[in-house]
Amino acid sequence: MEQRISLITLGVTDVSRARTFYERLGWQGQEVEETVFFQAGGMALVLWARDKLALDAGVEGRTAGAFSGLALAHNVRSRAEVDQVLADAAGAGAEITQPARETFYGGYAGYFRDPDGHAWEIAWNPGFPLGPDGSVTIPDFGVS
Amino acid sequence: MEQRISLITLGVTDVSRARTFYERLGWQGQEVEETVFFQAGGMALVLWARDKLALDAGVEGRTAGAFSGLALAHNVRSRAEVDQVLADAAGAGAEITQPARETFYGGYAGYFRDPDGHAWEIAWNPGFPLGPDGSVTIPDFGVS
Repeated sequence: MEQRISLITLGVTDVSRARTFYERLGWQGQEVEETVFFQAGGMALVLWARDKLALDAGVEGRTAGAFSGLALAHNVRSRAEVDQVLADAAGAGAEITQPARETFYGGYAGYFRDPDGHAWEIAWNPGFPLGPDGSVTIPDFGVS
Repeated sequence: MEQRISLITLGVTDVSRARTFYERLGWQGQEVEETVFFQAGGMALVLWARDKLALDAGVEGRTAGAFSGLALAHNVRSRAEVDQVLADAAGAGAEITQPARETFYGGYAGYFRDPDGHAWEIAWNPGFPLGPDGSVTIPDFGVS
């Protein structure tokens, strides 16, 4: 298994509602057969009905809790951008679960939950440089 | 908010167990302060204690269900590779929740759950071309 991820599919209650949320954040997607695809760098974020995803994955009937045990992160280039994106997310209907604050690694970050409860961290991390295209590079920590 | 994802952090019960699972699949990471970082193209997959992640995200005390409502996907270049990766995952300790089968879009795919229940789809999708570096490109469906 190569060391890469192709798609992240978010199971959602209402595809239109979910799409509207991401579009309010400025994302543009394509909807095909009630599935929305957002190209995101070399991968894609996908919105799909939660029950269809559960059926497809063979986990139908397994109920979900309030916290999915997983967070997506969107890293930005400044503290001000953290505040701006969190404000934009709140304006688009997100719940701010963790207001932005200083982090133990010398950065600044906060979290929101999208309308289906998926957790997103918005972070400024001076130790994880972003490329011109926004791609992140984990530094060589000198460990394994 | 730019249209990209920087990190995916999987909340795990036992960081060592989780790391061992991904290493058995051939991934190589770096562990810093009980956090494992796997560079994955222009983003990274991170393993972190589930309780720390919940606390960090401001969602502590929200219990999790069996299905997180989210799936990661790893697309491959052939049917045979789907079977191989699923077999490798099972060998590494994954639960195969959906054995590989034909898909409605003319592909072939199956799912496993990692030791913490995070869902991964392994898919061959002839409609979503993979670049030499494994990056996926969503085709222009001619819709919006």
